[in-house]
Amino acid sequence: MKIKLTLTYDGTDFCGWQRQKKGVSVQETVEDALFKITGEKIKIVGSGRTDAGVHALGQVASFSSSGGIPPEKYAKALNTVLPAGVKAVKSERAEDNFDACRSAKIKTYRYSAYISDTVLPLKDRYATMVTDYPEIDFSKIESAAKLLVGTHDFKAFCASGNSSKTTVRTIYDLKAEKKGADIDFTVTGNGFLYNMVRIIAGVLIAVGRGEFSEDDVKKMLETGVRPMNVKTLSPKGLCLLKVEY
Amino acid sequence: MKIKLTLTYDGTDFCGWQRQKKGVSVQETVEDALFKITGEKIKIVGSGRTDAGVHALGQVASFSSSGGIPPEKYAKALNTVLPAGVKAVKSERAEDNFDACRSAKIKTYRYSAYISDTVLPLKDRYATMVTDYPEIDFSKIESAAKLLVGTHDFKAFCASGNSSKTTVRTIYDLKAEKKGADIDFTVTGNGFLYNMVRIIAGVLIAVGRGEFSEDDVKKMLETGVRPMNVKTLSPKGLCLLKVEY
Repeated sequence: MKIKLTLTYDGTDFCGWQRQKKGVSVQETVEDALFKITGEKIKIVGSGRTDAGVHALGQVASFSSSGGIPPEKYAKALNTVLPAGVKAVKSERAEDNFDACRSAKIKTYRYSAYISDTVLPLKDRYATMVTDYPEIDFSKIESAAKLLVGTHDFKAFCASGNSSKTTVRTIYDLKAEKKGADIDFTVTGNGFLYNMVRIIAGVLIAVGRGEFSEDDVKKMLETGVRPMNVKTLSPKGLCLLKVEY
Repeated sequence: MKIKLTLTYDGTDFCGWQRQKKGVSVQETVEDALFKITGEKIKIVGSGRTDAGVHALGQVASFSSSGGIPPEKYAKALNTVLPAGVKAVKSERAEDNFDACRSAKIKTYRYSAYISDTVLPLKDRYATMVTDYPEIDFSKIESAAKLLVGTHDFKAFCASGNSSKTTVRTIYDLKAEKKGADIDFTVTGNGFLYNMVRIIAGVLIAVGRGEFSEDDVKKMLETGVRPMNVKTLSPKGLCLLKVEY
């Protein structure tokens, strides 16, 4: 029986989604928990790999189990054995051909930053500090964000190591919000390249500071070339909000 | 020269404000940092002791220094040597008789809870999980919160171990807010007894669930007797927002 499992985690202490020899991954932690409750060695497929330090409110995984646990009971059963850093939000029966990665249609991420000239302990676990010199003009960020919405070749917004066949992606929505010193980007698209959201956030902050212009952003989309001084912001500000199928 | 220092910290990994033999305290951490930047063994006085696990956005400390650092520069200098869990927000010169504890006039705390039947990793560091069975009626919480505003004997809202001469305190404001699954209490008063805010939060949640009535709350204020089943909620939901002088 195929199960669709929705997970939330604090990525701080994980080496990322994917099982690795060094460090504890989310995948390994959930697979270990599944073994504890079913006695089966179950391999799970995530909607995508989140990097070390990246958080999730609604990561989705799929797996097959022959166990006698009713589909909707997996979440509760898993939560009795999962550590506090990762928990199951929901479990449900899925079509037999459901694959959390290949079936994913739309993903939404949030990138959170805060403007400060010193680290703020109560913000710093889930957001990245950005300084306000040069001063950030938020209206410039809002304008530049609009340029990225739509279907584009995002090659310039992709870290080396990307393994996708094509670098063309569609962004359905990119909302920039500022509340006091907090800046949040919420971006929805049909898929994201390696480090794409973290690079977009870095570019938009740079635009706000006047270090890049709107024309520079247009040029990145047109030429596929990433300027040397574009920053990939820290993983801790990134959170996978939801995956739609 | 007397200095007023405003601090913010994530209390999770501290044994509380006060220097102790077991564990690392905020006080010790800041005093060590002061030693590093001034070469002086300086003792600091906090506006009050926060317990292990309690956070602060605006804790205030005072100290005397003969050093040559201009008052407003201490914050920046300290931040170069303080660990990421505690940072200085501001430093300024104070009157010679200023004492962060004795001079404090008004304090504001926030207590944060979230309604869920499983721990949510991205909320759980700074808020306490409360289950929704019995179901929480927020309007009951709002009504009961009003009963606590004013000058009362809060003996029934005080953990044993309180060392204050009197248990009479004035609460100027107690705001209960609900946003989705999040419940926040923001309480301003002229001073708080040991565990008082955490007990108030526990009582109000219990009122919301129907486990206590408004009359029970009135009785606690009148008799000074705390019912056995009142919970002192976890320190991790508590944050000292500001201290006024």
